[in-house]
Amino acid sequence: MKLIRVAFFLLLAASAAQAKIVTQSVAYDQAGVTLDGYLAYDDSKTSASNLPGVLIIPEWWGLNDYVKGRAEKIAKLGYVAFVADMYGGGMATTDPKKAGELAAPFYGKPLMAERARAGLDRLLKYSFVDSSHVAAIGYCFGGAAAQALAYTGAPLAGIVSFHGALIPASPEAAEKNRAKFLICHGALDPFTKKEQLDAFLKSLDDGKIDYQFISYAHAVHAFTNPDADKAAAAGLSGVGYNAAADHRSWKHMQAFFSEIFSKKA
Amino acid sequence: MKLIRVAFFLLLAASAAQAKIVTQSVAYDQAGVTLDGYLAYDDSKTSASNLPGVLIIPEWWGLNDYVKGRAEKIAKLGYVAFVADMYGGGMATTDPKKAGELAAPFYGKPLMAERARAGLDRLLKYSFVDSSHVAAIGYCFGGAAAQALAYTGAPLAGIVSFHGALIPASPEAAEKNRAKFLICHGALDPFTKKEQLDAFLKSLDDGKIDYQFISYAHAVHAFTNPDADKAAAAGLSGVGYNAAADHRSWKHMQAFFSEIFSKKA
Repeated sequence: MKLIRVAFFLLLAASAAQAKIVTQSVAYDQAGVTLDGYLAYDDSKTSASNLPGVLIIPEWWGLNDYVKGRAEKIAKLGYVAFVADMYGGGMATTDPKKAGELAAPFYGKPLMAERARAGLDRLLKYSFVDSSHVAAIGYCFGGAAAQALAYTGAPLAGIVSFHGALIPASPEAAEKNRAKFLICHGALDPFTKKEQLDAFLKSLDDGKIDYQFISYAHAVHAFTNPDADKAAAAGLSGVGYNAAADHRSWKHMQAFFSEIFSKKA
Repeated sequence: MKLIRVAFFLLLAASAAQAKIVTQSVAYDQAGVTLDGYLAYDDSKTSASNLPGVLIIPEWWGLNDYVKGRAEKIAKLGYVAFVADMYGGGMATTDPKKAGELAAPFYGKPLMAERARAGLDRLLKYSFVDSSHVAAIGYCFGGAAAQALAYTGAPLAGIVSFHGALIPASPEAAEKNRAKFLICHGALDPFTKKEQLDAFLKSLDDGKIDYQFISYAHAVHAFTNPDADKAAAAGLSGVGYNAAADHRSWKHMQAFFSEIFSKKA
């Protein structure tokens, strides 16, 4: 026991000395639109070796503090996190009507994958990112965008969709896809109809996509975001934070990253 | 980096010195039937503190080497594992016809939960088991038995069903249940019809049971058992080993145990 205590103390001391998260806004562009992404990494780790990269695609609210916080948490896990700016100018809103208007031009359009791809390409430019170990994760609208990006054949080891809208894989999309999928879904999410969920999973089966689908009891839409309760209080129905589902899906994402970022994978 | 390396070395040395798995057959009985369970634990850990307990309920094949191996793996994780003998005399078979005959008296009958409960009670008798942190896990037939046991209100923090037959929770069962559920399911399991799966999940939702349902791509029935390929080669259809789903579900079980065995939970 004494050996173990000494070892843990050393580990703790070592990691406390090392944890230094760097964050910065990063300007880039896509088809003439100026975008303002958000980078986060632990620079003591990037100086030691190339790290896996994680593209993060925000909810329809845009590039807000919530998603920046996620990027910092990803950085603390030892990955290089980059939040894609989907709307331009790093825009964010708390107004559902405005968010709906901002998101509308993306759904069902090539723009969704193209704008996400611009973020991915920016992430891949960092010399300290291991380009063979990159994932995309996304929340709600962003979960759908991560799927759309994978369906274009983007160089992704995996994607994670948290309460994402679900886009069935066409046979062509499944053929192009190179990513493993982790789909984290609220069992009571009213934004996704049963038939939509069934059609989505069937398309993954038919397309032979390697996926894990997880349904979390009691969880409705936006279950990872504490601010969902504010939105619900302001009148948006079907959304709510669920701490258990949030913590569980975060653990499941970490297990998924361990698998897809393994050097043996 | 040097500090970390030293720390890891010490941890490794400490854990190698400690790992000592004890296994033994354990006679017990239920309603006059003599049963022969299988206990596994790390006795360097049981001497230090009370450990969470894990009841393991075998596939319809009975108490074979596969399930004993699982018990030893659970012991290595730091838990006290006890494999329930459901058939008596520690019986096991590789003949599907015989297995079907052995399992038949249990499905839909109180005997399924009663026989599992006898195993749980035996496990709880060990003074080194922390009786407030006990789970039941089961494979195939055993997954169903773990559900049936939970539905009686048995003192379980959680259950894990691996490619288990799925038993919908009646309102009475949901009311009695005290366990969180982790349901690990093969996306292509032909033993479970879509309507059965839907009815099962709906019953958990309606009963407000705290569950996580995970569907693993490409996996058919018995995906955790390498011997499933032998059974398939011998003519049993719909079964097969799937290494990815096996490893993933094992990790998911560990994350689940971390949650339900937490002292804060």
